[in-house]
Amino acid sequence: MSTAITLAEAKALDHADPLASLRDRFALPEGVIYLDGNSLGALPRTVASHLANVISTQWGEGLIRSWNTHDWIDLPARVGDRIARLIGAPAGTVVVADSTSVNLFKALAAALRLRPERRVILSQRGNFPTDAYIASGVASLFGCELRLVGAADIASSLTPDVAVLTLTEVNYRTGERHDMAALTSAAHAAGALAVWDLAHSAGAFPVDLTATGADFAVGCGYKYLNGGPGAPAFVYVAPSHLDGLRQPLTGWLGHAAPFAFADDYQPAAGIDAMRVGTPAILSMSALNAALDVFEGVDLAALKRKADRLFDLFTAELVAAAPELELVTPTDGARRGNQASYRFADGYAVMQALIARGIIGDFRGPDIMRFGFAPLYVRHADVWHAARHLADILSTGDWDRPEFKAKAKVV
Amino acid sequence: MSTAITLAEAKALDHADPLASLRDRFALPEGVIYLDGNSLGALPRTVASHLANVISTQWGEGLIRSWNTHDWIDLPARVGDRIARLIGAPAGTVVVADSTSVNLFKALAAALRLRPERRVILSQRGNFPTDAYIASGVASLFGCELRLVGAADIASSLTPDVAVLTLTEVNYRTGERHDMAALTSAAHAAGALAVWDLAHSAGAFPVDLTATGADFAVGCGYKYLNGGPGAPAFVYVAPSHLDGLRQPLTGWLGHAAPFAFADDYQPAAGIDAMRVGTPAILSMSALNAALDVFEGVDLAALKRKADRLFDLFTAELVAAAPELELVTPTDGARRGNQASYRFADGYAVMQALIARGIIGDFRGPDIMRFGFAPLYVRHADVWHAARHLADILSTGDWDRPEFKAKAKVV
Repeated sequence: MSTAITLAEAKALDHADPLASLRDRFALPEGVIYLDGNSLGALPRTVASHLANVISTQWGEGLIRSWNTHDWIDLPARVGDRIARLIGAPAGTVVVADSTSVNLFKALAAALRLRPERRVILSQRGNFPTDAYIASGVASLFGCELRLVGAADIASSLTPDVAVLTLTEVNYRTGERHDMAALTSAAHAAGALAVWDLAHSAGAFPVDLTATGADFAVGCGYKYLNGGPGAPAFVYVAPSHLDGLRQPLTGWLGHAAPFAFADDYQPAAGIDAMRVGTPAILSMSALNAALDVFEGVDLAALKRKADRLFDLFTAELVAAAPELELVTPTDGARRGNQASYRFADGYAVMQALIARGIIGDFRGPDIMRFGFAPLYVRHADVWHAARHLADILSTGDWDRPEFKAKAKVV
Repeated sequence: MSTAITLAEAKALDHADPLASLRDRFALPEGVIYLDGNSLGALPRTVASHLANVISTQWGEGLIRSWNTHDWIDLPARVGDRIARLIGAPAGTVVVADSTSVNLFKALAAALRLRPERRVILSQRGNFPTDAYIASGVASLFGCELRLVGAADIASSLTPDVAVLTLTEVNYRTGERHDMAALTSAAHAAGALAVWDLAHSAGAFPVDLTATGADFAVGCGYKYLNGGPGAPAFVYVAPSHLDGLRQPLTGWLGHAAPFAFADDYQPAAGIDAMRVGTPAILSMSALNAALDVFEGVDLAALKRKADRLFDLFTAELVAAAPELELVTPTDGARRGNQASYRFADGYAVMQALIARGIIGDFRGPDIMRFGFAPLYVRHADVWHAARHLADILSTGDWDRPEFKAKAKVV
C-alpha cells in the first residue's frame, strides 16, 4: 500500500482483518485513538478481575500461605516462561524481575565476568538512555570503558578488546531495527558477547533469541506486553551461560536455598540466579494476566498487520503532509512497530493531537512517535490519526501557548 | 503483665484498647489468627478499591497521560515522604523504589564512595541473609572485605579500616533490637558510616532516623507497612549525604533530566539519585493506599500495645509451656514486635498451629516466630494462640507426617 485511501477503504481493511477481534481483549477509552502502546501498552480486560482476586483471595485470605498455595515464589519463572515463548527462548531461560535497567546491570555484569580479559563495553550512540547510563555504571564498577559508536560503525568497532556488545534491537526514537542475528554473529566472531534489549521487540513481532544466538537479553513488561505502568521486566540468559551464572546483585531469592537462611551466598542453579529480592507480586500478577491476550496469537501475523498500519499511515502523510520527515525505515524488516517523524515543533504538534484524542508521544528534540500496537490499533484509527495530523499542520492549530508548555513527562 | 490471664480478661483488654478500631481498617479472613504481619502485612481495606481505580481510570482511561495527570512520575517521592513521617526522616530524604536488596546495594555502594580509603564493610553474623549476600556482592565489586561478627563484638570491631557498618535494627530470627543511636554514634566515632535496614522497624514502632544520625537506611514495604506481597521498598539518605550522592545503578529515572534523553548520565539532585528504572506503579499504588491506615496513628501507642501483646503471649507460655525457650528479649526497648521461640521440631509445631488457623512462621533450624502487628492483632487472638500452642505441645499433636513435610517456602 503506497497511496492514500478513503475512510471506507480503511474500514473495509478492518472488516477483513483476521486479528480485529483481538481488540476486544482490551479496555480502551471512548474517543481515543491510542498510538503509544510502544510506551505504555493498553489495559487488557483480564487484568482488573485477576488483580482483584490476587488482592482479596491470595493476599487477603491466603496471607503468607500464598507463597506456597498460590506458588508466588515461582511466579517470576512462570511468567518468564510465558514471555520466553514470545521471544524464541526455551523454558527455564527467562525470569521476570526488577526493572529493565536493573536487569541490564545484571546481564552486563554477568557477561563481563565471562570475558575478564577484555575491558570494553561497546554500544550505540543514541541507544535508549537508561541502557547507556547503566552500561556506564557497570563499566565504572568493573574498571572498563564504555565505547559508544554510530549505528554504521558497530560491526567495525568489534575490536579484540570488546567484551560485550549491548544494543537495543529497535531504536526508541527512530524505530530502526538492528539485524540481531548478524550483529550477534559479528560479536561472536570477534570473541565478544551480545546483550540485547528487547524493550520495543517483545510482543511486537517475532523474536527468536535461540536462532540469533544472543547471549543475554532484557526487556520491558509495560510496552507491547501490556503489563501495566512500570510492570516488572524480564531477563534472558542463553542456555550455554546458565551453568555458573554470576551477577553481583546477590539477593536472597537468587540463592540456591533461600529458605535455608545461610550466611554465605550460593547462587541458584539456572536462571534463578538472576533473581534478587522479593518479587512484586501485584505488578507481576498484572503482567501475568496481561499475557493472556497473546494466547493463540501468531506474532508473524501481528507484525504483518503492524506493517500494513505503518504503510497506511505513512502513505496518508506523504500525500497530505509532505513537509514531515519520516525517520523510520520503510522496509518492514528494518523497523519496529512505530513511525517516527522529525518536526521542529513536534512537541506542540503532539499536544494538539492529544487534545483531539489522538495519543502518540514526543522524544526530544524533534521526534514525534506513533506506535502501531497491532493487537488493538485499527486501520481506521490510523487513517483518522494521519488526517488529523495533516490538518493540524496545515492549519497551524499546534501553534498555541497551551500546546507548547512542556509537561514533566514528555 | 507477668502472669497468665483468663480469656475474659483478654477480651476486656481489647474492649479497653484505644487502638482496637484500627483493626477495622483491614480485611482479615474469618477463623484466622494472624501473627505473621512481620513477614507479610495483612490487607488494608483501602487497597482493593484504590488499585481498581488505578487500573481502570489511571491506566485504562488515562493511559500514557497519567504519568503527568496522575503524577505517576513523582509517586516514588510522594510515597517516600509518607514513609519518612513514620521513620523520623525529613521530607525529601526517602524514595520508594526496587526491592530492599537492591536499595541496600545502592546505599552500601554510595556509602563506600564516601569512604574510599577504607576497605571493610562490617556487619553481623546472622543478619538477614539478603543483607549479608548483598553486602558480599558490593564488597566483591569494590575490592572490599565483608567482615561478619557476633552481636556482642560489633562496637569493638569498628576498627579504622571499617568504611561502613550495616545492620538490621531488629533481627529477623530473634527479634532482638540493636541500639541504633549508640551503634551509629560508635560508627561515626570510628570514622565509619552506618547503613540500617528497617525491615522489621518501619511501621512497627517509632523510629527516629534524624535523632540517631543514621547515614543511610533501607526498609521493606510489605511487612509492618502492609503494602502487599513484594511491595516496593524504600531507601533513606541523610540530608548531609544528599549533595553529590552517587550510586552505581545509574538508571534513567535517577538522571537529573530523564526526559532530555541525553547520552551521558548526570545524577538527579537529592534523593531522586537513588531511583533507577520505571517505578512499578501498581505495586507502589497498593503501598500508597496501605499507608492510609497509619493516618492519625501514634506509633508510640502502637508499640505500647505490641508490648502488651508480647507480655500476654509470653506469660501464657511461661505458665502453660515452660519447655519453650524464648529467644527474644523481654525488655520492650530491646526487641521488635515479635516473640521467637526455639524448639527443635518448631517447623512441625508451626504447621500444626497453621492447621488450626493460627499463623506464625518458622525460621530454620529451630525458631518459631510470632509477630504482634498492633494495628490488627487483638489480646484475645494472642491468648488463643498461646493456648493452642501449649495444647499442641502437650498433646504432641504436631508429631504427624503432614506437619513435617517441608513446603517450598517456610
